[in-house]
Order: sequence, then structure tokens, then C-alpha cells
Amino acid sequence: MPQYNPPLRDMQFVLHELFNVVDTFRTLPAHADIDVDTVNAVLEEGGKFAAQVVAPINLSGDAEGCALDKTTHEVTPPKGFKEAYAQYVEGGWPALSCDPAFGGQGLPHTVNQCFYEMLNSANQAWTMYPGLSHGAYECLHAHGTDAQKSTYLPKLTSGEWTGTMCLTEPHCGTDLGLLRTKAEPQADGTYKITGAKIFISAGEHDMVDNIIHLVLARLPDAPAGSKGISLFVVPKFLVNADGSLGARNGIYCGGLEHKMGIHANATCQMILDGAVGTLVGQPNKGLAAMFVMMNAARLGVGCQSLGLTEVAYQNAVAYAKDRLQMRALSGVKAPEKAADPIIVHPDVRKMLLTARAYAEGGRALCVYTAMKLDVALNAADADERQEAEDEVALLTPIVKAFITDNGWIATSHCMQVYGGHGFIHEWGMEQYVRDARINMIYEGTNTIQSLDLLGRKVLGDNGKKLKKLGKMVAAFVEEEGVREDMQEFINPLADLGEKVTKLTMEIGMKAMGNPEEVGSAAVDYLRVVGHLVYAYLWARMAKVALDKQDSGDTFYTAKLHTARFYFAKLLPETASLIRTARAGVAPLMAMDEALF
Amino acid sequence: MPQYNPPLRDMQFVLHELFNVVDTFRTLPAHADIDVDTVNAVLEEGGKFAAQVVAPINLSGDAEGCALDKTTHEVTPPKGFKEAYAQYVEGGWPALSCDPAFGGQGLPHTVNQCFYEMLNSANQAWTMYPGLSHGAYECLHAHGTDAQKSTYLPKLTSGEWTGTMCLTEPHCGTDLGLLRTKAEPQADGTYKITGAKIFISAGEHDMVDNIIHLVLARLPDAPAGSKGISLFVVPKFLVNADGSLGARNGIYCGGLEHKMGIHANATCQMILDGAVGTLVGQPNKGLAAMFVMMNAARLGVGCQSLGLTEVAYQNAVAYAKDRLQMRALSGVKAPEKAADPIIVHPDVRKMLLTARAYAEGGRALCVYTAMKLDVALNAADADERQEAEDEVALLTPIVKAFITDNGWIATSHCMQVYGGHGFIHEWGMEQYVRDARINMIYEGTNTIQSLDLLGRKVLGDNGKKLKKLGKMVAAFVEEEGVREDMQEFINPLADLGEKVTKLTMEIGMKAMGNPEEVGSAAVDYLRVVGHLVYAYLWARMAKVALDKQDSGDTFYTAKLHTARFYFAKLLPETASLIRTARAGVAPLMAMDEALF
Repeated sequence: MPQYNPPLRDMQFVLHELFNVVDTFRTLPAHADIDVDTVNAVLEEGGKFAAQVVAPINLSGDAEGCALDKTTHEVTPPKGFKEAYAQYVEGGWPALSCDPAFGGQGLPHTVNQCFYEMLNSANQAWTMYPGLSHGAYECLHAHGTDAQKSTYLPKLTSGEWTGTMCLTEPHCGTDLGLLRTKAEPQADGTYKITGAKIFISAGEHDMVDNIIHLVLARLPDAPAGSKGISLFVVPKFLVNADGSLGARNGIYCGGLEHKMGIHANATCQMILDGAVGTLVGQPNKGLAAMFVMMNAARLGVGCQSLGLTEVAYQNAVAYAKDRLQMRALSGVKAPEKAADPIIVHPDVRKMLLTARAYAEGGRALCVYTAMKLDVALNAADADERQEAEDEVALLTPIVKAFITDNGWIATSHCMQVYGGHGFIHEWGMEQYVRDARINMIYEGTNTIQSLDLLGRKVLGDNGKKLKKLGKMVAAFVEEEGVREDMQEFINPLADLGEKVTKLTMEIGMKAMGNPEEVGSAAVDYLRVVGHLVYAYLWARMAKVALDKQDSGDTFYTAKLHTARFYFAKLLPETASLIRTARAGVAPLMAMDEALF
Repeated sequence: MPQYNPPLRDMQFVLHELFNVVDTFRTLPAHADIDVDTVNAVLEEGGKFAAQVVAPINLSGDAEGCALDKTTHEVTPPKGFKEAYAQYVEGGWPALSCDPAFGGQGLPHTVNQCFYEMLNSANQAWTMYPGLSHGAYECLHAHGTDAQKSTYLPKLTSGEWTGTMCLTEPHCGTDLGLLRTKAEPQADGTYKITGAKIFISAGEHDMVDNIIHLVLARLPDAPAGSKGISLFVVPKFLVNADGSLGARNGIYCGGLEHKMGIHANATCQMILDGAVGTLVGQPNKGLAAMFVMMNAARLGVGCQSLGLTEVAYQNAVAYAKDRLQMRALSGVKAPEKAADPIIVHPDVRKMLLTARAYAEGGRALCVYTAMKLDVALNAADADERQEAEDEVALLTPIVKAFITDNGWIATSHCMQVYGGHGFIHEWGMEQYVRDARINMIYEGTNTIQSLDLLGRKVLGDNGKKLKKLGKMVAAFVEEEGVREDMQEFINPLADLGEKVTKLTMEIGMKAMGNPEEVGSAAVDYLRVVGHLVYAYLWARMAKVALDKQDSGDTFYTAKLHTARFYFAKLLPETASLIRTARAGVAPLMAMDEALF
């Protein structure tokens, strides 16, 4: 069975040495008192919870899956899941980054991000039960009425109840404008909602007393398409005025999906049969309200693949040091053994270092984005909030798509390190690959992310947000470019920065003639910009490591080696991506549909 | 449930229009009489068998898996597998390319290759039951005594019995020199074999009366390592002198693996407890004899991923034409529908065309290699046989690793086309991805293939075999370079040919200083050479299509579009691969093992 060691040292490096997050927190009224020790203590305890409570039920949960009682419509998750969730609530973990006004601990999202990375390493399927609550919480916090807030937020904060997002229907996922679920207004101001939803993660389970569904539906007089969608909160059990649970509401699980991965999370078909709900936000403005959930979820999905990449790496390294097979090409390395450990073989190292560089790069990106999210939510100054929000908007599709694509590559590599054993369930590696696969699909496929980045976030504002990123990179290049020992990192970073500028302008020009050019280039473009961001972060990490490499702490030596690996073996992918992005629309669109 | 339509038209294109295989057959005494109609008729019938008998039990077989009775050690494959196998035997399919001396039909391997592609598209797990027999057959045919041949080959040819390869042990897969299974000589000339084997595909099942295991083991006085390994044939039931079945032999299934994919194939732990076997070939020369099986198996594995790529493509296209979601960026395409079919979106097309270009390119490579194998086995002239054998030796690791890596990429893309539905078992797409994953691992991991290519096949003979490939490419470039309409294919092909030559020399030079340079570059190198081979084949296919595009048959139009897609969007991967191959050993080996 795989093992998991919380990467606390690297988290501390990223939090305190790379970004000095506490300095940023100090500028935010809500977080001004948080110090390094508090952050570290929370993460140390969080790591214990992840490794000791949640990780041990990952493999068994995958083998067992969830069970639906078709008579009662109740869902039972795998053994141990309910007990682990009870411990999670007991420990106060759901409240970590929630608003103190509703019982939360008010810690920064940055801390919660690191906690969730560890939960995801330990058990992505389990983590989705509490994880989905965050979206519902954020959405109600931003758009709920006072009554909705006081009814739901304290229970979501304590973890006594969980939440879901009910968006997808059988005929519409990406294109929510097609959705058909109906909401009929009632005399008492509530709505009766009827329809069928699919792919509802954690849609039904026995771990809590109530489940709070956020449901997209259409009002009777709603305009067609995406401008006629409203958002409703629909509890599994209606809630009485005194907060006690009332009648069972007409929303129930009609079926569970049999999936490639995340077997232990209940992916539900939800039937709404006149379910009672209340409107969240304005009528017909449901998609906008929903995007509060969605953006949180997209960052959360990136964090899932970060977690899987880290744990897959850890286990593959342990196996590569233990497994004896063949001798090194350069001669025997372990003469006392029957063969050398496979970590002596260059390509085994390449697979391991790919996972390592993507895990550490992904961690830096996730923490950076979470820190900016904290600024966007809490800075005293409105301009500062806006600036941070813009940066988060630009980075969100990169967090979602770049980290999950890399997670697929990395977990597959780590599985490959095990040879035939990687394909066998008991070793746990193939589960990481299967679990990682969904992250490229849900909460907006990675193609949708790339269109969001290139079409909306970059070209949509004439490159303003991208230019800010460019300026940040350029400032770093200028500042560190004078250092001899930084050349190996600064030169390729500067080069890629220029190429991204040119590529963006070129695509922008072509898109004016043919909008399909955006769709043709977007996926390659996102990976190029992803690499620009990683190159920037890796160069910054290398700088810190160079400055401290004489400390005697080999952590910095390893960081430098990993940085060099990133620049030598991963960044060059951009050479191909830029070529294929520039190859444009004709090779894709020239062939008649009938000829496929 | 996925559908499968045998790609007979494209097979005919590759066989008869691209390679004119019958012209080659005519030069081979054993196949001189075979004509185009015979080849097409066999494949048409074979396609029906694959699509109508084998494909319908693929999804159900994956869901059901195999069952082991721990008391009797008998294994039951999923429902319908035994019946389909009986039809397979009934139809004479096992004998297709077997030696007429043992009851075979004596058709070329080229025909069998195309038949197996269709079986693999239909059901990889089922196909492995008869598929493994081919390795055992080839091995006994090449190295067996007359008694072994007359005992086993007729029954393997008829399909009444199946065969296996028992190589791997828990502590050794790649490094067979470590194996421990013991063979003790008996007074009657047989051996008693004792040990434990794992990962034995089709190791036990109820579809036939007898299973013929080819087992690697050590004689008592054998030298250590890979020079002390012998090969034995060990039947499940001993065979009496009259050919009737005798006592149950001491080889039985001790357990079944729970795997990521190919659930319906029994992956057995085989216990040998004094099992009676006879020696195949010379004592201590087992690895050499085994490589006859292994080379056949490696070509077979490439063919598995070719099959999966094709069937995944077919289904993804059907879904992309049917699924309505969003409008095209360039405006509404299907105004009569609620949304446009997703095939209007450029990135959906990119995913589809990637699979299509890899399927058609892989088919061309597999058929070409099989044709050369037929020449190597059957040409009258010894030099001609050797020349063809050299070419097959060079191409084998490319068939195995390049096609299976591409199959992983392609099946994953095709699954992505389905969005969330791709992750759901009933749609069948995620099964293709899971099944495709093992092909990168077994019969020598793809890293081992790359070392075989660069270390043994290219540098090992100072580039002689590679130079022959280079000459073939150069001749085509020279011949077609004068054609204006071939420039778009010839120029990048010629360019890549030169780059491969330079890269090979550079790595060869560096490897003289440090042999780890081979291991560092090998995986990237194999993909570069794989693309050179595909660029050559795609350019040749484009030429045929250009010559016939005025025929009015849109098949050639589609072929040209796919060729253009390949050169525009897939071949450019070489730009990155050459950079990372050249980045060399330091980024991989500089980091101390302890720092991982």
C-alpha cells in the first residue's frame, strides 16, 4: 500500500522563504495577526490528519466503491469514510478558512490550500466530500440572503452539513445554456424544482445529517440560453425556522456512475421532483453566481492533481530506491546486491524528476494563487483587491489545466517506474493515474480552460492581465539578470517571455480574421503560458536556493537540481507547442466533417 | 456501448496501394500464389468475426473480470469468452499464418497482422488468449525438437490448445538474469521444475483442454545471471505418446492480479511444483530462444495499441458528430439544432485527428514491418532475408514503444472528446485508456525498447541499420522532391532525416565518454526516430493520395488532410525531443540518490 509523508519542509519553503506569505497577511486586516508558527503548526497537524486518518482508507475505498440502496435512495460510501469525516469535523478542519461570523477560524485560503493539497495526496475521493462544501459555502457567502446565510453557513462551516453543485444534465455539461430543470415559484416565495442532474459529486452519502445542494434551473418566464438560468439552494432535508431538520425534500439519488477513478466518491444522478428551494442571487443571473463556486472549484481541481503528483512521486522514489534490476550502464553501483536499485537508471530518474518538478512547481503556483486570492478578498485597498483579482483570474485556468495535465503525465510516469507492478491495484499507483484523469475533465474541461485563458482572460482585455504577468517576469529578469549564477535560469525565462508576447500578438491578429484561430491555438497556448509561469517560479525558487546553498542544508541542493532539470528537460516542450500553436487553423478545419 | 467497424478500406489502401504487398509475396516461394482478392476476402471475414463475435463481449468482460476457484485452481474468464473462442477455432482462425506442415494455412504474417489489429480493436483482453499462443508456436517452431513440434504445434495451430510465456518472477521482470525457478534433470530426460512466476497472461482458463507453458528456469549447474537460463515447455496436462492427455502437471494458478485494465484476461501467478517439462533448445541458451517469442510479442503489443487507437477514434468521431454543445466560434453551423455538434470545435478536431493520424500511421508501420517479417522468413535469397531481418530488428522497438505511447495519448484524447461521459464505464472509452496503459509496460517497458533501439540496434552496429533506413528516406526525398505538390511533406521529412543523423552522431560521441548518455537520451531518441518513420510513411501515403485525388473518391482527400495534420501538429514534437535528448545526462544524474 502506498505511503504518504506530508511535504511540510517544501511547503514551509514555498510559504516562508519563497513568498513570505506572512508579510502579505500582515497587510490584510483579517489576517494581520497570523504568524509563521501558527501556519506551520496548523499544517503539521493537518498533515497528521491527512496521513494517519485519510490516507489509510484510500486504496480500500477505491476497491470498495459506493453503494446505493435503490429503495431508500441512500448512499453508503466505503468503510471508514464516515468515521474519518467525523474526526474531520471533530478537529474543526472544515472551518479553517471560513468566516468567523459564521463560526469559522478565519485563516487565510493560503493555509487551507496547503491543507487540501495534503488531503488530496492522501485520498482525493474522500476529500471531495468536504471539498464540495467549500464551493457551496463561497457561493452562499457571496450571494445568499441573510436568512440563507444564517440557515446554512454555520452548519457548512462546522461540517455538520455538506454541500454540492448541481449543474450538469445529461444533454449539457459545458453548454449550461441548454439546461432544462424547471423552477416554479410558489406563493410562499419558495420554488418547486423539477429535473434531472448528473455527475453530482458527493451528491448523496451518510456522513452528515443534511446535504445542501446548489442547483441551476430555469424560471417559467426565463429567456432561452445561458441568460435564463437561476441558482437555487435546495437542502436534502428542509430546515425549520429553529434550525432543526424538517421534511425530506424531493431531491434524491437515482443512480451512481461506474467510473474510471474516484470510485469512493459518490457520483450521483440526482432527481429533483418538486424539490423546494430558495433563490440565490438575482433571477436569471444564476451563471454569474455559480461562477463563484466554479472558480473556487477550478483552483480546487488543480490542487487535487498537485496532491496526486506529490504522493505518486514519493512512492515511486521509494520503489526506485528499493527495487533491484539490472546494473547501471556506467558500471556496478551496488556490488553487495544482486542488481542495482533502479534509481541508478537515467530514464527512471527522468520520470521521477518530472513528477518532482511538476509537484514543486505546482505547489508554488497553487500557494501563489491562494495568496493572491487572500489579497483579492481581504486587502483594505480596492485597487489592490482588483489587481489581485485580475491575477487570480488569469492564473485560474492555468492552475486547473496545466497542473492537471501535468498530473496525468506525472502519475503515469510514476506508475511506469514500477514496471508491471504499477498496473496492479495493490501497489496503489494505477489508482493515482485513474483518479488524476477526471481532473482534466470536470469543472470545465481543459480545453474550456484554454479558451477561457486565451479568449477571455488574454485577448478579451487586449492582453492587459497578461502584460502585468509579463512585467513581473521582466522585473525579475532585470533584477537577477546581472547575477552570473542565475544565467541558466534567467536566459530561458527571458527568452520564453518574449516568445509569449510575440505568440499572443500573432494569434490575436489572426483571430481578428478568423475566430477559430483562438480555438485552434488555445490548448497549446495555455501550456506555453503555463511553462512561462513555472519558469518564473522555478527561477525564483532557484534564486532562494542559490542564496542558501552554503547553509549545509541539502534541501537547497535538491531544489537547485530540480530547477535545472525543469529548465533542461521540461521547459523545452515550449519549442514544439509554439510551432503547433502557430500552425493555425487550416490543418484542423480544412477537412469536411463527413470525411471524419 | 462502443461500436466497431473494421477499417477494411484503409487496410486495402495500405496493403495494395501503398505497399503492393502482393508483389512482395510473389517473390516469396511460400506465398507466391496469394492474390489481392484472397487477402481482401480473408480480412473481410476476419473483420466480421472481430466486430460481431469478439467486440460485443469487450465491455461486459471488463466489468466481470476473471474468477479463480482457489480449490481447483481453475480460472473462469467472463461470460461469452469461451464460446467466442470456440467459434474462433471453428473458423480456423488460429491457423491463419501457421506452417502448413503442422496444419496451418500458411498465409503471410502481413495478413495475420491486419486480422489481429481488428481483434485488438474489438477486444484486447480476449485477443490475448489466442495471441499468446503465437509466441509459444513461433518459439517451438524455431527451437523445438521434432518430438516437441509434432506434440504441440498441430494443437497450437488448430487452437485446440493455447500457449503462454512464463518469464517474470516477483523479484525480476526486466532483469531475467535474476530468476530463480529451478529445473532438475530426471533420468528419463525430462526436468522437474519448481518456482513461482507472475504476470502470466492467459496463464489459466477453461477455453481449451490443455495449456502449453514456455518456462524460463535454471539448471542445477547453470552459471549465474542471464547466461544460465534455459527454456522448457511445460504442459498443463502431460501428453501421452498417442497424443491423448495424461496426468495433470504440477503447474497451477495460485492467484489472479487485480489490474488497471485488461480485466478479462487472466493475469496469473503460476506455481510450479515439480512440474514436468522438456528442454527447448540448448541448455543455458534459454534467453536467445525466448527472444523469438519476445520479438513476436513486441510486434503484437504495438498491434494492440494500434487496435485500441482505431476503435477509440471511431467512437469519438461518432460522439463528436452527435453531441450538441455550444456554437462554433465562427458562427452557428447547425441552426436547426439547439447547439452545434462538437466536431465544429477546433480542439475536438485536434484530438480526433491526433488519434486518426496515429492509427493510420501505425497501421502503415505495422503492415510494413509484417511484410518485412514475411521477407525475412521466406525470401529465397539469404542476403535478402538478412536485410529484411535487420529492418525488422530496427523497427521492432519503434512498433512496440512508439505505437503504444501514441496509443496512450490517442485513447486519452478520444476519451476527452466525451467530456464527463468519457470517465463513465458504460461509454467504453475509459476502458480503452486503461487497456492501452499495459502496452507501454509489458514485453519490455518502453524505456527498455528505447535502450534496445539506441544502444543495441543503432549504436551497437555503428549505425548500419539506421543508415539503411536513412538511405530509403533519402531516395524517396530525392525522387519526390522535384514535385511541387509534395514539398509540404518532403521538406520536413528531409529536414528531420538530417537532424536524426546529427543527433545520432552527437549521442554516439557523448556515449563514448559516458555510457549513461545513452540511457538519458534513449526515450526521446526513440520518439524522434518514430516520427522520422511516420513522416516517411505519411509522405508516401500523401503521394499515393495526391496521385489519385482526382478519382472522385474522397478517401484520398481525407488521407491528404490527415497527412497535412500530421506534419503540422504532430511532427513538430521533434523540436522539443531533440532539445531534451541533447540536454544530456547532467540534469538527470547530478542529483545524489539520497536527495530524491
